[in-house]
Amino acid sequence: MSDHVYKQIKLTGSSTDSIEGAVKNALSKASRSVKHMRWFQVVDTRGHIENGQVAHWQVTIEVGFTLED
Amino acid sequence: MSDHVYKQIKLTGSSTDSIEGAVKNALSKASRSVKHMRWFQVVDTRGHIENGQVAHWQVTIEVGFTLED
Amino acid sequence: MSDHVYKQIKLTGSSTDSIEGAVKNALSKASRSVKHMRWFQVVDTRGHIENGQVAHWQVTIEVGFTLED
Amino acid sequence: MSDHVYKQIKLTGSSTDSIEGAVKNALSKASRSVKHMRWFQVVDTRGHIENGQVAHWQVTIEVGFTLED
Amino acid sequence: MSDHVYKQIKLTGSSTDSIEGAVKNALSKASRSVKHMRWFQVVDTRGHIENGQVAHWQVTIEVGFTLED
Amino acid sequence: MSDHVYKQIKLTGSSTDSIEGAVKNALSKASRSVKHMRWFQVVDTRGHIENGQVAHWQVTIEVGFTLED
Amino acid sequence: MSDHVYKQIKLTGSSTDSIEGAVKNALSKASRSVKHMRWFQVVDTRGHIENGQVAHWQVTIEVGFTLED
Amino acid sequence: MSDHVYKQIKLTGSSTDSIEGAVKNALSKASRSVKHMRWFQVVDTRGHIENGQVAHWQVTIEVGFTLED
Amino acid sequence: MSDHVYKQIKLTGSSTDSIEGAVKNALSKASRSVKHMRWFQVVDTRGHIENGQVAHWQVTIEVGFTLED
Amino acid sequence: MSDHVYKQIKLTGSSTDSIEGAVKNALSKASRSVKHMRWFQVVDTRGHIENGQVAHWQVTIEVGFTLED
Amino acid sequence: MSDHVYKQIKLTGSSTDSIEGAVKNALSKASRSVKHMRWFQVVDTRGHIENGQVAHWQVTIEVGFTLED
Amino acid sequence: MSDHVYKQIKLTGSSTDSIEGAVKNALSKASRSVKHMRWFQVVDTRGHIENGQVAHWQVTIEVGFTLED
Repeated sequence: MSDHVYKQIKLTGSSTDSIEGAVKNALSKASRSVKHMRWFQVVDTRGHIENGQVAHWQVTIEVGFTLED
Repeated sequence: MSDHVYKQIKLTGSSTDSIEGAVKNALSKASRSVKHMRWFQVVDTRGHIENGQVAHWQVTIEVGFTLED
Repeated sequence: MSDHVYKQIKLTGSSTDSIEGAVKNALSKASRSVKHMRWFQVVDTRGHIENGQVAHWQVTIEVGFTLED
Repeated sequence: MSDHVYKQIKLTGSSTDSIEGAVKNALSKASRSVKHMRWFQVVDTRGHIENGQVAHWQVTIEVGFTLED
Repeated sequence: MSDHVYKQIKLTGSSTDSIEGAVKNALSKASRSVKHMRWFQVVDTRGHIENGQVAHWQVTIEVGFTLED
Repeated sequence: MSDHVYKQIKLTGSSTDSIEGAVKNALSKASRSVKHMRWFQVVDTRGHIENGQVAHWQVTIEVGFTLED
Repeated sequence: MSDHVYKQIKLTGSSTDSIEGAVKNALSKASRSVKHMRWFQVVDTRGHIENGQVAHWQVTIEVGFTLED
Repeated sequence: MSDHVYKQIKLTGSSTDSIEGAVKNALSKASRSVKHMRWFQVVDTRGHIENGQVAHWQVTIEVGFTLED
Repeated sequence: MSDHVYKQIKLTGSSTDSIEGAVKNALSKASRSVKHMRWFQVVDTRGHIENGQVAHWQVTIEVGFTLED
Repeated sequence: MSDHVYKQIKLTGSSTDSIEGAVKNALSKASRSVKHMRWFQVVDTRGHIENGQVAHWQVTIEVGFTLED
Repeated sequence: MSDHVYKQIKLTGSSTDSIEGAVKNALSKASRSVKHMRWFQVVDTRGHIENGQVAHWQVTIEVGFTLED
Repeated sequence: MSDHVYKQIKLTGSSTDSIEGAVKNALSKASRSVKHMRWFQVVDTRGHIENGQVAHWQVTIEVGFTLED
């Protein structure tokens, strides 16, 4: 593990349900093109409001993945 | 949209259930007097502990709303 | 309340389900040895990814408890 | 001056032209209802993009004004 | 306590004597119009200098108060 | 809008004229290869000095764009 | 001094009088069980309000002490 | 270039016109006594308000210059 | 006032008595060589501990002064 | 140089030996696919521990490179 | 791994040689009483100067270790 | 020691070898004109890249020294 190199990308996902759902949606779409994702960190939690209620959650994460040889 | 002016206020809501619930409770009470709320950002997530368990979640948000003409 | 002294410790808990679950697991284990816990603050929210999905949430909190006489 | 008390509010203004224009638009609308504004601090500078170009600048400021007796 | 919603406002008070005095002066003036203030946090401590000496202390606080039903 | 996923990239543009010009130059070059850019945030404003004058402004932005299906 | 190892703990003390008093109360109680305390840093200054006045100051410090052999 | 040592100083300039103008005024006055200035970074952007309008912009920069042998 | 340029320096003063005293001692010594000091901001509050008690307070401030023509 | 546009990416490299080695390993792998790298900034320094000793250093950097025409 | 709970402590180590050496000395002394240390993060890098030269490096780390059942 | 006043200056040194070397080079040049330097803190660690390799390390420190009577 000591010789791995990781790259981090920043993604924002949305969900009408929950913070966890917004993270899952971001990872789900990213996983189509990015392989070997290892960890994420939540760096911003926001949301849009319509009629005084949460319309959807919008969560920004940094995702680390292994750079392959 | 380019000629809107927004004001942001800082609110703290509570919930015995979840972080999302605390945000919803804050917005619910604020919506009685504040109109045209557009977005929020979570700026602090805390909680109170009783008997070694989470008694309630306490989440602070900044809420942006449109200043009307 | 004005003559209490509190100490804060930093803990990281995990959960396959939710952010709230990770906090609860951290408090549950800590409560075996730490008494008089009063509040917590979430200071980092991370997670591990396996096969493009969240394997578990990993949440770091600071926990304040009363120093007894 | 040593006995004044100031209150700070947080505003976001927009302009298709410049950062300075966005600040001026925020102050212009706020001055209709807020008196005795004394200073501001820029706390966030953002913008919206349409067709690969800046559609408008969006600048958030904190504005301090004197609380009157 | 778990169903309270709090609002936070940002105030700057001054005193020729001390940091504590500047906070007290800010709260004293705010208490004329704001009810149910519960806590404050110091977010900036500054001062003005005249003839090489502190002319007055200028302390900015965020004040939380209960939103009534 | 609640089912969009955004990616953010970090760019630094330069201009001999203004902060706004440096942002525009960064977006102009990026728009050749990045589609669906939606917003940016200024995260650093610097400049180079020659002969005691601003030679050019150098502004770093984070740019969010929609990940297409 | 170059071969010492220090540990830092985080404490919150209270005082009805002053910021300095809250720090002293925290150190006074900690000194019963922690030896060889060397320095502290103030990391948060808060207070509780009752009837529009400061009921007590609540100051959080990090305290460094020497780990003995 | 690898054997240069730089010193950084912190300056605040003002302008009735623009953020860029405030930076230029700070550099213009500093260049009378400081030689070999190489770069700057904007660390604070503020302004004074008179009659509800921006009276002048006040921008704080850190300026790096080469320490000569 | 709009054409003034200020320089800021960083000083640390000490006092066996109080935070305010540490600031005053820093300004008192600086005033021997620095003229036209206008304001300060507290950026760090620390202290040394001897025998479980505060031996002296150590406060770091940034001081702004006018650059003369 | 005033018309260059740079992109920044975030990488994490590892080394059993040193912080400098972890940065070099990150750059070495990245240089296979990224051309025209110009500078880096260290944003996080961590490490893994095995048997009470540093198993490897893990350093995160942001790397700026020129966007070619 | 998803059911582990970690505690983090903050340590400062010193070395006349290097940043890495200061971290190793901190871990070496801590390992006498703390078991199951897993990772660390560097949070502050300082040093003492004597006769214009680095007398010793002083590095503060946060160390995470597994709380055993 | 309680009656000392310190001033802090910000320096950037470079080295082709190491972070420690960059700090030493900054202190070495500063010591020609600044007396009574006591401590430093690393506030930024950067580097320049040539041909995919570290050309030199560039470390910014704040240095505290005693103001003499």
